[in-house]
Amino acid sequence: MKKSSIAIFALMATAMSTSQAYQWQALPEKAPAPADNPTTQAEVELGKTLYFDPRISSSGTVSCNSCHNVMEGGDDSRANSVGVGGQTGGRGAPTVWNSAFHSTQFWDGRASTLEDQAIGPMTNPIEMGMKNHDLVMKRVQKMDGYKTLFKKAFGDNKMSIDQAAKAIAAYERTLITPNSPFDHYVKGNKKALNKQQLKGMSLFADLGCVACHSGPAFNGQANVEPGTPVLMKFPTFADNTYVKKYKLAEDKGREEVTGKAEDNNLFRVPTLRNIAVTAPYFHNGTVRTLDEAVKVMAKTQLAKDLENEEVKSLVAFLESLTGPFPEQSMPRLPITSGTTVIE
Amino acid sequence: MKKSSIAIFALMATAMSTSQAYQWQALPEKAPAPADNPTTQAEVELGKTLYFDPRISSSGTVSCNSCHNVMEGGDDSRANSVGVGGQTGGRGAPTVWNSAFHSTQFWDGRASTLEDQAIGPMTNPIEMGMKNHDLVMKRVQKMDGYKTLFKKAFGDNKMSIDQAAKAIAAYERTLITPNSPFDHYVKGNKKALNKQQLKGMSLFADLGCVACHSGPAFNGQANVEPGTPVLMKFPTFADNTYVKKYKLAEDKGREEVTGKAEDNNLFRVPTLRNIAVTAPYFHNGTVRTLDEAVKVMAKTQLAKDLENEEVKSLVAFLESLTGPFPEQSMPRLPITSGTTVIE
Repeated sequence: MKKSSIAIFALMATAMSTSQAYQWQALPEKAPAPADNPTTQAEVELGKTLYFDPRISSSGTVSCNSCHNVMEGGDDSRANSVGVGGQTGGRGAPTVWNSAFHSTQFWDGRASTLEDQAIGPMTNPIEMGMKNHDLVMKRVQKMDGYKTLFKKAFGDNKMSIDQAAKAIAAYERTLITPNSPFDHYVKGNKKALNKQQLKGMSLFADLGCVACHSGPAFNGQANVEPGTPVLMKFPTFADNTYVKKYKLAEDKGREEVTGKAEDNNLFRVPTLRNIAVTAPYFHNGTVRTLDEAVKVMAKTQLAKDLENEEVKSLVAFLESLTGPFPEQSMPRLPITSGTTVIE
Repeated sequence: MKKSSIAIFALMATAMSTSQAYQWQALPEKAPAPADNPTTQAEVELGKTLYFDPRISSSGTVSCNSCHNVMEGGDDSRANSVGVGGQTGGRGAPTVWNSAFHSTQFWDGRASTLEDQAIGPMTNPIEMGMKNHDLVMKRVQKMDGYKTLFKKAFGDNKMSIDQAAKAIAAYERTLITPNSPFDHYVKGNKKALNKQQLKGMSLFADLGCVACHSGPAFNGQANVEPGTPVLMKFPTFADNTYVKKYKLAEDKGREEVTGKAEDNNLFRVPTLRNIAVTAPYFHNGTVRTLDEAVKVMAKTQLAKDLENEEVKSLVAFLESLTGPFPEQSMPRLPITSGTTVIE
């Protein structure tokens, strides 16, 4: 049995939960980190600098932050993202906020870790467009400020792509949003959610949304071995008008990675944290509003038609999963005195 | 007599200065602000938010900061900048740092104030590509967070493009870099510059660089009425190999604005503050290094060939005009809950 099948099976089992029985969980105050990359301040500092540096893209115009904007909801408000030369891909940028709580990365779960994910877009021809990672690091190595930052973070002068990946991942592990109204409620402040939100919360469990969107990050990945993709068929129920209208079945999803027909339309279950600030919705960004996204999910995943009041309550509940976003200082990007690293 | 001619004449007169007589000036700790737009904290906060918001471009991908990156030297390390859809223009982005000390804005001085400049790129089809300023403000008005920020800054609910311009300009007036090594030297710390830098400083005056690059911002615009362009013919001496090699005479400069042949190749005198961190050089970014830029300037503006040692000293002196860059917090970009403002 494939790893992905195991994960899907586990999700189905949880579908028995109800709002009474369901154990809501607050988001941890700290994201988990792998044993070989503990989150240190020096790594975070380096990682943040790299994350904001557009000079690691071929044109010098696209940084990690261009598509995963941490000053917004960790994405780019677009249906699909724009890379070097104005090129666009077919999928929307998943939010970087709380990505540390995903067991795998990308919509199709093709990267096992944040470290793996971090360096993927750099050499993707329609994202950051660098020919290879050596050329990325050659640019970085030209800047004295980076020498200091790498030395501080790793204690040597390697300045390798693996170190860059580790540093960016370390920074991303600080991009978490515990203490949302929902978290305050779960931790005991019963006034943190209003009536409508509480109604939505019950509905969320009763309808079966928690089958997939379980755990503190609402992504079903809390107790999953890191590196194991938690995938779900989307759309599961395709016999409705939404699927055609929003082109939901056109992207092969996981099948693009494995080439196996059984992986058709399988996508990683995304976190619902900050979902209210990451429109438009779904892997292809075809749905503009959260109201509509909730209706689409009920119909395509649970074969249910929601009343308008139910939609409103669910949206109100989902809004309780927003922020707060920690204040951050801007990094200062290192320079090469009197010249540029962009060819 | 045209305003621009007056400014050019004034520059020629200053050319008599020598290093002995020349009065070096430190950069003021505060940038001047017009009477109708004093720099307030609330305006700066709003202005910073707008400055970093890519959603005021047609594609939602280009913010003021995309080309005038305040985390770097206030530009984009590129010969020319990249706007929506990967389009490029013919000129490089001037640094935003210390732009508050320019009497006019843009390479050709076509904007009289920072306020005027701030909203220009928004509707430029190859920069931010919005059809008109009404559409810009319609997007901004959709975001509740902006309502609060505008109200705080201006005390009313107008949310007009003029207010946006004022706020961005107010933020830009905080982007200044007094207290560089040069400033410390001028203020009395004789150890702030090393021997080579001091040699470069003398050369800078003796050669006649101060004819144009005078005053605290090294742009000849300290005592010029705001709104008056300070222009210089570049190249002045065109009979050399640099002009062809670097295509220096191809851009008509001010003539593009006025349509007058006498304005051919006239450009605003740029500040030399932070020049070491704003490569590549000149309006068209064809010169990659500061060493070469110094040689080109000596030849095309002063008809002089420099020794290598002279170039080194001048570059060392110019490096003393860098930073320090104030620490800044990242703005949080307002959102529209459950939807996106990008069409």
